[in-house]
Amino acid sequence: MINNTQVGKQSVSFGTPPYIIEESSIAGKKEGEGPIGGYFDEVEEDAMCGGKTWEEAESRLQSRAISRVLKKAKLEPTDIRYLLGGDLLGQLIATSFGIETFEIPLFGLYGACSTMGESMSLGSMLIAGGYADKVIAITSSHFASAEKQFRFPLGYGNQRPLAASWTVTGSGAVVLSKDASDKKKGANVCITGATTGKIIDYGIKDSMNMGACMAPAAADLIFNHLTDFNRKPDYYDKIITGDLGYVGQEILVDILQEKGYNIEENHMDCGIEIFDTDNQDTHAGGSGCGCSAITLTSFILHKMRKEEWKKVLFVPTGALLSTVSFNEGNTVPSIAHGVVLEVM
Amino acid sequence: MINNTQVGKQSVSFGTPPYIIEESSIAGKKEGEGPIGGYFDEVEEDAMCGGKTWEEAESRLQSRAISRVLKKAKLEPTDIRYLLGGDLLGQLIATSFGIETFEIPLFGLYGACSTMGESMSLGSMLIAGGYADKVIAITSSHFASAEKQFRFPLGYGNQRPLAASWTVTGSGAVVLSKDASDKKKGANVCITGATTGKIIDYGIKDSMNMGACMAPAAADLIFNHLTDFNRKPDYYDKIITGDLGYVGQEILVDILQEKGYNIEENHMDCGIEIFDTDNQDTHAGGSGCGCSAITLTSFILHKMRKEEWKKVLFVPTGALLSTVSFNEGNTVPSIAHGVVLEVM
Repeated sequence: MINNTQVGKQSVSFGTPPYIIEESSIAGKKEGEGPIGGYFDEVEEDAMCGGKTWEEAESRLQSRAISRVLKKAKLEPTDIRYLLGGDLLGQLIATSFGIETFEIPLFGLYGACSTMGESMSLGSMLIAGGYADKVIAITSSHFASAEKQFRFPLGYGNQRPLAASWTVTGSGAVVLSKDASDKKKGANVCITGATTGKIIDYGIKDSMNMGACMAPAAADLIFNHLTDFNRKPDYYDKIITGDLGYVGQEILVDILQEKGYNIEENHMDCGIEIFDTDNQDTHAGGSGCGCSAITLTSFILHKMRKEEWKKVLFVPTGALLSTVSFNEGNTVPSIAHGVVLEVM
Repeated sequence: MINNTQVGKQSVSFGTPPYIIEESSIAGKKEGEGPIGGYFDEVEEDAMCGGKTWEEAESRLQSRAISRVLKKAKLEPTDIRYLLGGDLLGQLIATSFGIETFEIPLFGLYGACSTMGESMSLGSMLIAGGYADKVIAITSSHFASAEKQFRFPLGYGNQRPLAASWTVTGSGAVVLSKDASDKKKGANVCITGATTGKIIDYGIKDSMNMGACMAPAAADLIFNHLTDFNRKPDYYDKIITGDLGYVGQEILVDILQEKGYNIEENHMDCGIEIFDTDNQDTHAGGSGCGCSAITLTSFILHKMRKEEWKKVLFVPTGALLSTVSFNEGNTVPSIAHGVVLEVM
């Protein structure tokens, strides 16, 4: 019997929590040279991934992430009922061209860099709602396709302010399943709940400071999550945001402190973990849909499968930046989506 | 008890089908002058909707569609647990800026012009899965914001080939609910099932012939829907596609004929219905996310509430066109999403 529960204002808990039975991470060269480089399944040295354009390169990352996760889980594309995915590019072209050969029914999602949280939330809802036995949640980003779309041509060699982040090149995918895997690869990790974000807009217009744009959305999500479930931050071994970076982390901690929650002790940000900013010239940290996705599917799930962390609140964060709205003088509204990962 | 069923390869049926308790349609001037103009809730004469940019105009259409549907349903934003929506613009800016003041948890979706099918599919799944009592599914398009993004500046006055369609200016929204409305406004209409589309790519590269790009996706969706549910086309009073137009309709009927299904008798296309092409210079017909959305939320649901049609397969169709991928020589892949509407 399916017994899902609406929790508080914007959360749900799952009667039968879906398992993350397998995960894959395909990373770029720079990410491979960073502090968590040793945890990735594949590090691609060629920025074009053997393709002809940056966009094609990003599509290939997604394609390889799916192939890899299917292979690791010993599954065929026909075993997957839905694919939930998206990326940063207009009209989600990295996803469309990356996944089309698998012929899996698709829900295309856009949550900017929060996409992995959105896809895992909806994917879990579909499984725990009885609509699927197995789904794949996926996303990607690519430094060069993102710079080309959102900022300057690479050849221009613009200076980047210290608040700017570095878009991660990589794609991460998970297979969510109604049943646990019979493969022994460490502890079972389940998604026990999800909190869905609202658009939060503090009026910030600085496209070179995504951390400041997204921190209020992350704070709102985490605050509402803790309130909905009546939990304290120390319920979690880690509360992990997607790509706030150093600037955003400070704002996040401050806002939550004002609201009565101290997360300083157990907060971690994927954008801070993924690069060694002193030696890799990445300024505020990593960003992009791929940042939280490949950190989850390598380092974070590694820690959980070893039971070093048993309860994690995973909160990818997205700045809904568009050059059109930005050039028309608009703000950069943001959103975050949270999923509860627990060792079962 | 929740009792949803996976049907065939890519469909589901709902144990407790969600009700469409209310709908709203905000249309542009040209749409208001068309054959179904009399069915819209509002016709906006000003192409800018009182805003400063085309994108802002489109955001205002979404904002008004939500306000209108809430008012018609006598609901407050806090009564709505999730908003599922998207649009054609890069990074979904029409949606982000259109809906942010309502402060409703958001799942941002991208399915090009199939978005209304995607949002209603997922919205129904969330309700029938026990995650929400009420959700809003919404989408929009605007002729000028779409032309600006995908084709030529309006001031250039380019010639449009006869296979080209005319992007509909409008926004449609529905409130889906676990329980029927106590308001008497005609028959109750439920969503009893959904079929989720795959990306279909026949290699077509003509961005001025969206009908030909999308028809194979519509055919694949309808074929798989009928096969999954073991139904004949005449199970439905109408099988309604989103925006194939005259060119796409012919291809759709032909492909399905070859696969053994004759839908000629009961097929209808929103793109054909919404404009009087002989007198409105709209060539192949209407298109855009708003095309199927406002036809559904005016004419189609009017027919169903009067019980002139009792069973409808509603199949919005989307061409995943991007100027970046198109200019790099890529094809225009397509997708369609189907929902089963039944008078209960």
